[in-house]
Amino acid sequence: MTLSTVQSIQPFFHPKSVAVIGASNKLGKIGHTVLLNMEKSGYKGKIYPINPKESEIYGFTAFKSVLDVPGDIDLGVICIPSRFCVPVVEECGKKGVKSLVIITAGFKEIGGEGMVRENRINELAKQYNMRILGPNCLGLITDGNFSFSSLSPDKGHIGMLSQSGAMMTGLLDWAIENQIGFSSFISLGNKCDADEVDFIEYLAQDEQTKVIAAYIESVQDGDKFFKVVSEASKKKPVILLKSGRSAAGAKAASSHTGALAGSDIAFDLAFKKAGVIRAETISDLFNYCMTFIIAPIPKGDKFAIVTNAGGPGIVCTDAMEAAKLGIARFSEDTIDKLRSVLPAESNFYNPVDIIGDAPPERYEDALDILLQCSDSEVAGCIILLTPQAQTKPLEVAQKITALHQKYPTKTLIASFIGGVSVNEAAKVLTQGGVPTYAFPEDAVRVLNGLKIYNDIQNAPIITSKKIEHFEVDKERVKEILSQVRADGRVVLLSYETSEIFDLYGIKNPKSRLAQTARDAAQLAEEIGFPVVMKIVSPQIIHKWDCGGVVLNIKSAEEAKKAFITIMSNARTKGPAGADLRGVEVQEMIIKEDKKKINELIFGVNRDPQWGPMIMVGSGGIYANYVKDVKFDLAYQYDRNDAMAQLQQTNISKILEGVRGEPRSDIEGVIDIMVRLSQLVNDFPEIIELDINPCLVFESEKGYSAVDIKITIKH
Amino acid sequence: MTLSTVQSIQPFFHPKSVAVIGASNKLGKIGHTVLLNMEKSGYKGKIYPINPKESEIYGFTAFKSVLDVPGDIDLGVICIPSRFCVPVVEECGKKGVKSLVIITAGFKEIGGEGMVRENRINELAKQYNMRILGPNCLGLITDGNFSFSSLSPDKGHIGMLSQSGAMMTGLLDWAIENQIGFSSFISLGNKCDADEVDFIEYLAQDEQTKVIAAYIESVQDGDKFFKVVSEASKKKPVILLKSGRSAAGAKAASSHTGALAGSDIAFDLAFKKAGVIRAETISDLFNYCMTFIIAPIPKGDKFAIVTNAGGPGIVCTDAMEAAKLGIARFSEDTIDKLRSVLPAESNFYNPVDIIGDAPPERYEDALDILLQCSDSEVAGCIILLTPQAQTKPLEVAQKITALHQKYPTKTLIASFIGGVSVNEAAKVLTQGGVPTYAFPEDAVRVLNGLKIYNDIQNAPIITSKKIEHFEVDKERVKEILSQVRADGRVVLLSYETSEIFDLYGIKNPKSRLAQTARDAAQLAEEIGFPVVMKIVSPQIIHKWDCGGVVLNIKSAEEAKKAFITIMSNARTKGPAGADLRGVEVQEMIIKEDKKKINELIFGVNRDPQWGPMIMVGSGGIYANYVKDVKFDLAYQYDRNDAMAQLQQTNISKILEGVRGEPRSDIEGVIDIMVRLSQLVNDFPEIIELDINPCLVFESEKGYSAVDIKITIKH
Repeated sequence: MTLSTVQSIQPFFHPKSVAVIGASNKLGKIGHTVLLNMEKSGYKGKIYPINPKESEIYGFTAFKSVLDVPGDIDLGVICIPSRFCVPVVEECGKKGVKSLVIITAGFKEIGGEGMVRENRINELAKQYNMRILGPNCLGLITDGNFSFSSLSPDKGHIGMLSQSGAMMTGLLDWAIENQIGFSSFISLGNKCDADEVDFIEYLAQDEQTKVIAAYIESVQDGDKFFKVVSEASKKKPVILLKSGRSAAGAKAASSHTGALAGSDIAFDLAFKKAGVIRAETISDLFNYCMTFIIAPIPKGDKFAIVTNAGGPGIVCTDAMEAAKLGIARFSEDTIDKLRSVLPAESNFYNPVDIIGDAPPERYEDALDILLQCSDSEVAGCIILLTPQAQTKPLEVAQKITALHQKYPTKTLIASFIGGVSVNEAAKVLTQGGVPTYAFPEDAVRVLNGLKIYNDIQNAPIITSKKIEHFEVDKERVKEILSQVRADGRVVLLSYETSEIFDLYGIKNPKSRLAQTARDAAQLAEEIGFPVVMKIVSPQIIHKWDCGGVVLNIKSAEEAKKAFITIMSNARTKGPAGADLRGVEVQEMIIKEDKKKINELIFGVNRDPQWGPMIMVGSGGIYANYVKDVKFDLAYQYDRNDAMAQLQQTNISKILEGVRGEPRSDIEGVIDIMVRLSQLVNDFPEIIELDINPCLVFESEKGYSAVDIKITIKH
Repeated sequence: MTLSTVQSIQPFFHPKSVAVIGASNKLGKIGHTVLLNMEKSGYKGKIYPINPKESEIYGFTAFKSVLDVPGDIDLGVICIPSRFCVPVVEECGKKGVKSLVIITAGFKEIGGEGMVRENRINELAKQYNMRILGPNCLGLITDGNFSFSSLSPDKGHIGMLSQSGAMMTGLLDWAIENQIGFSSFISLGNKCDADEVDFIEYLAQDEQTKVIAAYIESVQDGDKFFKVVSEASKKKPVILLKSGRSAAGAKAASSHTGALAGSDIAFDLAFKKAGVIRAETISDLFNYCMTFIIAPIPKGDKFAIVTNAGGPGIVCTDAMEAAKLGIARFSEDTIDKLRSVLPAESNFYNPVDIIGDAPPERYEDALDILLQCSDSEVAGCIILLTPQAQTKPLEVAQKITALHQKYPTKTLIASFIGGVSVNEAAKVLTQGGVPTYAFPEDAVRVLNGLKIYNDIQNAPIITSKKIEHFEVDKERVKEILSQVRADGRVVLLSYETSEIFDLYGIKNPKSRLAQTARDAAQLAEEIGFPVVMKIVSPQIIHKWDCGGVVLNIKSAEEAKKAFITIMSNARTKGPAGADLRGVEVQEMIIKEDKKKINELIFGVNRDPQWGPMIMVGSGGIYANYVKDVKFDLAYQYDRNDAMAQLQQTNISKILEGVRGEPRSDIEGVIDIMVRLSQLVNDFPEIIELDINPCLVFESEKGYSAVDIKITIKH
């Protein structure tokens, strides 16, 4: 019987019985600490210490092997030296242990024999239908503390995963101090079998968990991630801190975990597609978690600020603008209402300044008016307070929590700036469901997180998007690519790229290979004059230098002559022994009949985890210096994605038509992007693809992918 | 006798006697609170309550007027209604009061009569040689608490200024809770006389102050700011949080303080020039302050990370890369030394991972080796710790503080991630001179602040920079501009701009105004054929449309004919009654003899506080969409500034020569920028200037400012 992921992961969370393999009476031994932690954490299930040399450990009957245990074992915790692990895992398999945590280090992360051991263990897991967490991890804290960390945090609603055991220790320590509770805390280690995606799938349906959070350094399987996480993130927020952002960081990540870290831009794109909220810092991770647990998700994207002081109001406005958070513009009606309850010196526009002498009632009056507004006018408020002479922070806090009860769907975030004078008030707010921060910038940051999650909930699930598929003769493309491989080449010749683009419906100058002068004349007539002719040889890269190019050929006669000239030039002036495949006859782009010509660049490269990535932007010879390019993953990529991507470039405005110029063939550009995406998804052997330039003309004149380069896997 | 700023500001800090004008026996009155605060704060000088109706207040003999006070008065604190302020300020002047704090509101910020009152007070201050702080402020805390805020913070070494009184209250409250001490805390209010710059000048020479920090919303006088702050920032760090960054924020700032807020990019540039460290958030402001007070400024720009866990090491590396902080590359010698003391599984490269079981001695060994390195190899270390099983945070902290003693010039910042397990250690570190943060990102942020201050210390003082001045016939420029004004125009005609550019030595197509056909022929011959001829008329903007342009004129005869044609076209096809000034004869740029042509844009606009701002970047018809432009203030602007500015643009690389192209006339571009800067500094009436395009050719061919537009003040 095959279990679902949730079923197979379940024993990690609610094991009825746990065997500690390597349990020990010796203080300081991992096997001792783990047993002690289980005990201390109040784990209620059966505990079986396994140790060949002991009969009793810490009051529990010990067994020589899991095979000797009388009952079932839901979870095995392995803390014996790595060289003994493989036979023990096999015994666990035979015993029918459902899940294993391997705390032991000395596997993939050390390479060599460690790698061999890890692979073997993984095979055994599959063979015996066991799920394995680790190796090289700290363990996990679920129904009990099944970890090597003696810290047991409060019970709460954050499901936390950490790819770094040491990070887990630090975070637990910090969280305990700050009274942050967890539904579970899991150290992922080398992720030989169960990985963050499996746990996210479980946590998504776990009722105790309201927010899923993780510190990760890599993702193994992009497809699985998309499939699971894009659904999980609809159910509850998934907040990931992914380190190894920078080039240097990625190097450190790779030496640390032995995982092949993907490029960071791909992670940004993938997280966005999967509905993940990316934390930028460790503080972010916790602040987001704490806020999501208590605050409602805003149902709109415009927010009000209410303040009893101008300065903090400006600081808050700055932070909102920087975060691109919508600053509400009030309706005349709202402004009138505010005017009717607030003193004349107040500011009735956003930020609403209710002035330094504001009593609690003034906060209440202003907020009551703002929270009555429609969600589209005001979806929530940031409430600022500085403790001035007449200010009563505690009473203001009570008014605010009462308003939170009255308007439970409106998002309220407070920043009471101060210490002694506002600490009590801050407690009242937090307990009353209103997250509170010392400074306005932090309040804005978490509000932005909440707003992003609203966008995520409103976006379609990426895996269920219907993607348009163009009819293509893929067999013919396969033949072309086979021929390239048969030649021992990795870069396609231009008539090959041209044919593939024709097959995929991407317009490019007509181009055919002529092998005789008569061919050349006939092909030129088919294509239509004028044409360009160029030598075709894998060895000749600089075609101009050996007289291998003739431009502006206007008749069949000229084409014949050009063929003979080019072939003769190539033979005499080209590299000795070059394989001359013939002469390419190519349509010539007539620039004079175009009102508008812009050069674009398109490209594809492949991210190891996330697959092909499409690039678009300003092309031409300076493209690498102008750097006006944007990226998106080709995963479930449609015309809307392409349009959104194009619109991030500077050249997009120019294509729309500026300075009285006509609109360019933007539909054509979008078409190229989605067709390219299908091409590179259809043929994973294409590892790189460049079009530069692609000439884009005014709408009715279309575009032409003038210069195309395709590279396939060796 | 005229006092220096420091002498005149001194009474605010160390008054021997203070009069509280408006002192009151009534609880809740500002005049009561201020007197109480002075008393409670232990102020040792003489206290004179002033109140026409009382003979004794709070145990002190009261006087009806300052004029009745027997002794001198160093500081007067005014807390009476605004309508009574003017006569009272005059009395203070007559009495010879040295400095005044006006807490009272109801001045510039309310406009109208408030504005009148504020101006009158300012006049009195000048007349009687009194310095005034405020009005509309909270007061100040120096030798005593001369403020309306009952919070007195610990004595310390931060000199803090705040343009927002409410912000001051909040920050004081927070600082007291967090045991942050201040040498002084000053609420600036409306800054009618003494402003942040005066106080910065004082604090720069104040021995109690190690760091100057401020929250400001505006700067009144850019020149004064540069003069004072650029010297102060050499003596001690000046950290400013300037709000009103965003468009919306600036609007809020302006409605709040009535100050004309400058555009934010100008503030960024000005702060950089003056050596100010700009805090991005309130947390930043405090974190920088706390770090500067205890940590040495790094003497190099490369830093090491030492960690007992991989994950935090990666997070730290990410943050360093994001901040563009130099990550040290160790010499072979250093790596060998590390190898000799650390376990084989360690990472000997940066970040140095001394592994989870690291005892305190291992931290010591690794750090001792790194801190022995030259400042250029390792100027400081970020030390990361997670509390794992064998970790002894307290002992590690002790080792680190001992190393700080041994290597006092090396910058050490710690991040001990955790709560209960590391709190004691964190205290030991902070007390031992090593700033400590819960998370690595914060450690990196403050290290970056310290590194920026090292750069500031090494940079020349902007006010003492020698700026090259070109000999220019300014009288002639004045004549041209007078003529423009005499015409009632604000935009110069092209032969006028051309002459001004010639006078300033900026190459542009030769251009002269012909008023007869014979003139035209002669001027064309002087300029050299071919030439372009264009109608000149303030009323004709679209010259082509009325047949007002003839290109490619190759002889004197053609020039004569062109003159007649153009004048006749303008008369018949141009707007009726247009003032026809004649025909411009302009040199034609011959593109064929250039190997390389790039279009650049140059521009100038004026910031109200900071003066002219120079722009440079990619030009051409799409310049507004390509958005490849960078700015710098023209204040003390030299060739190095111009080069640094140019190098921030994308087009700069292209000018250097890419893809085998020759180098462009970069020296010419730099020349344009410094000459433009002199022009707009010489003539403040020039409020806008644009060159687009300026054609830049390969080095030996120079450049040509083809299209110039100059706008002067109306």
